[in-house]
Amino acid sequence: MPEIKKILVANRGEIALRIMRTAREMGIQTVAIFSEADRNALHVRYADEAYCVGPAPSSESYLKADVIIEVCRQLNVDAIHPGYGFLSENANFSRMVREAGFIFIGPSPESIEVMGSKLAAKAAVANYNIPMVPGTPSAITDRAEAKAISAKIGYPILIKASAGGGGKGMRVVEAEHDFDEQMDRAVSEAQSAFGDGSVFIEKYVTSPRHVEIQVLGDQHGNIIHLFERECSIQRRHQKVVEEAPSAILTPEIRDAMGRAAVDVARACGYYGAGTVEFIVDDQLNFYFLEMNTRLQVEHPVTELITGVDLVKQMIYIAEGKPLAIEQDDLQIKGHAVEIRVYAEDPANNFLPDVGTLDTYVRPQGNGVRVDDGFEQGMSIPIYYDPMIAKLITYGDSREEAIQKMIRAIDEYQISGVQTTLGFCRFVMEHEAFRSGQFDTGFVANYFTPDSLTAKSDQTESDLAAVLAAWLLQNQKPTTNVAPVQLTQTRSKWKENRLK
Amino acid sequence: MPEIKKILVANRGEIALRIMRTAREMGIQTVAIFSEADRNALHVRYADEAYCVGPAPSSESYLKADVIIEVCRQLNVDAIHPGYGFLSENANFSRMVREAGFIFIGPSPESIEVMGSKLAAKAAVANYNIPMVPGTPSAITDRAEAKAISAKIGYPILIKASAGGGGKGMRVVEAEHDFDEQMDRAVSEAQSAFGDGSVFIEKYVTSPRHVEIQVLGDQHGNIIHLFERECSIQRRHQKVVEEAPSAILTPEIRDAMGRAAVDVARACGYYGAGTVEFIVDDQLNFYFLEMNTRLQVEHPVTELITGVDLVKQMIYIAEGKPLAIEQDDLQIKGHAVEIRVYAEDPANNFLPDVGTLDTYVRPQGNGVRVDDGFEQGMSIPIYYDPMIAKLITYGDSREEAIQKMIRAIDEYQISGVQTTLGFCRFVMEHEAFRSGQFDTGFVANYFTPDSLTAKSDQTESDLAAVLAAWLLQNQKPTTNVAPVQLTQTRSKWKENRLK
Repeated sequence: MPEIKKILVANRGEIALRIMRTAREMGIQTVAIFSEADRNALHVRYADEAYCVGPAPSSESYLKADVIIEVCRQLNVDAIHPGYGFLSENANFSRMVREAGFIFIGPSPESIEVMGSKLAAKAAVANYNIPMVPGTPSAITDRAEAKAISAKIGYPILIKASAGGGGKGMRVVEAEHDFDEQMDRAVSEAQSAFGDGSVFIEKYVTSPRHVEIQVLGDQHGNIIHLFERECSIQRRHQKVVEEAPSAILTPEIRDAMGRAAVDVARACGYYGAGTVEFIVDDQLNFYFLEMNTRLQVEHPVTELITGVDLVKQMIYIAEGKPLAIEQDDLQIKGHAVEIRVYAEDPANNFLPDVGTLDTYVRPQGNGVRVDDGFEQGMSIPIYYDPMIAKLITYGDSREEAIQKMIRAIDEYQISGVQTTLGFCRFVMEHEAFRSGQFDTGFVANYFTPDSLTAKSDQTESDLAAVLAAWLLQNQKPTTNVAPVQLTQTRSKWKENRLK
Repeated sequence: MPEIKKILVANRGEIALRIMRTAREMGIQTVAIFSEADRNALHVRYADEAYCVGPAPSSESYLKADVIIEVCRQLNVDAIHPGYGFLSENANFSRMVREAGFIFIGPSPESIEVMGSKLAAKAAVANYNIPMVPGTPSAITDRAEAKAISAKIGYPILIKASAGGGGKGMRVVEAEHDFDEQMDRAVSEAQSAFGDGSVFIEKYVTSPRHVEIQVLGDQHGNIIHLFERECSIQRRHQKVVEEAPSAILTPEIRDAMGRAAVDVARACGYYGAGTVEFIVDDQLNFYFLEMNTRLQVEHPVTELITGVDLVKQMIYIAEGKPLAIEQDDLQIKGHAVEIRVYAEDPANNFLPDVGTLDTYVRPQGNGVRVDDGFEQGMSIPIYYDPMIAKLITYGDSREEAIQKMIRAIDEYQISGVQTTLGFCRFVMEHEAFRSGQFDTGFVANYFTPDSLTAKSDQTESDLAAVLAAWLLQNQKPTTNVAPVQLTQTRSKWKENRLK
């Protein structure tokens, strides 16, 4: 079995740091790559060695497969971890890495290819009893045919670009009279975004929840699942809050979904860490959506409830080791919630708000994990995803994890850019989220920019405390209490919360 | 049942912050007290309200029971959490708090009194079958009597101050001819430190390990234990590294110790969080030492392996709630290690090295918890314990927790003061610690200031990497790799590790 002694992380930001931390814990040397815009980034300073691979635009640096492989040659790197995004789900890259004699820490190019195409994925799992949303068996471009199928399935239906992802090229059609217009838009969006105008027609699941199952497979055919993550709080089909376990699954449904996810992985001969996404309706029926053949942004919540370091497992698997964890070894312990802290302005339609982190103080304490790639004084480059950090909290129960999250949000001090902290606090405090009764429409249904300026009870009681203290301070002391000094209490946290 | 809405934390530094974080998560308002030396301390800025209670020396501020209670009156505080040290094990203070109509978040004054006296403690547990180290049934001052008892028990023996603690007034006597001199020293030390020259004589346990059991009792007679913490890595009888679970206990011995600890707590009608300390010999016989009637410095390791927030439980118990956790609900999950990071110079006999934290960057990532009370630019006051932080790591196994600790130590950037980080790294890498085969003599047996300057393999391989990269950089590029830039790799971490 090959032993991995040096890993190149073909990524940047928080995920590059997160991977390097585990590598270092395993005694593995790390190589960072960076664009000219990331010269001072934390992942560069953290690595044992670091190489500039080109100018800021990703296409000229982080996506330069040949340059990255050449760095591996020069530095005697054993393996490449692609992180998420960039080249992580690029089958050609994975194949190039293998052919150059290096280890790709991820699945085979064949698995990536199968799961990268919705059609091929459906065909692959056809021999397994995987529940699917009713819809077209293959991608179509013909409007009349699509319309006929939609009528048969029954409205509402969803039009999805065959080559799509991340919400691009997706259209909901509530009734037949809207069909033509939406179909035209979907095809044209798909054509311009992916160069492929073919679409699927699917039953649109009402009150849908996004629940995904983490799987781990080795190169010897062993596959296990690590339970679910619920990622239903989304904004424009992008996840913003994730948690594990889901607030609504029963042990029976969890078990059934877990088995279905393992079957999906088995269907494509999967090894490495992967995620099988399902849509769950309000009757807790679940339907297979797609498989992501990479480490997910939201993987930490799974790590916290299972105690399994997913990156460590990925490295072991890449070395060819058989999985040391069996399904029955795993159990859910506690509850974890993650929020994505973006440099975006929630009051201004979440427009990216790049700039310098004039103040940047992370929350701390029991059950708080911050995965980020910044420190105070750094600038957020305009070239990349404006995520500042992932803030993850862990508690014995869902309620405890949420309480910790609110406390941690209040403790996070960021100035210089607008952030989504206040927006995430709004989610945490909302009755629908708190009760577990929500779906992917949460943000559209409940959030308006006004949500952030509404006064909370907390704020009012703070005000009362300040007033009471002021009164105390301005009365003649009648006791031997030393001069009362009221500190500027929580002002920094309030800014975060209220903006 | 009284509901606690506002807590005054009668403490400072990391433990004050740690308590306030849980209070805030529970929606409870917090009041900090501070000395003039702590005006800019983090615990002051974190609290909802903060009061200066006097000048720097503890006797004029943090120990001013009457002033603290008066602050509670003025601010409508419901309860006081004493933390550890200061007034936390002062039965009179606990009684004053109760009589003033406030809730003391801790045990009854009666329990504190019983367990505060080794004699009373022994008497209290006499009806239970608690194993004790053979020794004098009562405190004595007569040298001849003590000598006769020592001969009967058999050398080596230990002379311990009746009113002592923290290693003060403790003397090991290896053979009878040393007895007189050591007895005189012990009595005189005890007299000057505690105003009480009486001592106990005890069998000195060879290869002793310090293993303590965390207990939680409510006000309705329910008592549970939360397994053990091993604190055998000590310097001058002060704990420096702690872990949970112990590397050596069997499930049977763990269970027997847990039951003994619950009995000790029951013997003094204990409620709140408490710790029952045992000494364990090389045959895994265990003997009751004493009970600490407070939250311990090292409580986080228990929180990490059980998922129980001990401060939260203390608050619930103080409110009169029955324990919601039953013994059978609890299980050990994973492994946690804690190191105490002191502003001390290990190369100079661990002399306190107060000063300003010119650089102060905490380690981060999965399974890393830092409990501290400082940030970059702050000074460490000379008036108090020079502990900068507790660094705690958690992993699925003991080996994983230790690997995380080494990684986290390397990542911790502190300049401006000397610290014990390098010393703790030495412990983590030592074969005796790694194998679990160590006792309280670890530091004395293995550590010398030279231990810190010895070159590790790691350092040599770093050197090789730097050299290789230099060679690369000074050859003509033969490929299309963008200009190679070697970053100054890990220099900051190396400083920490090597000093």
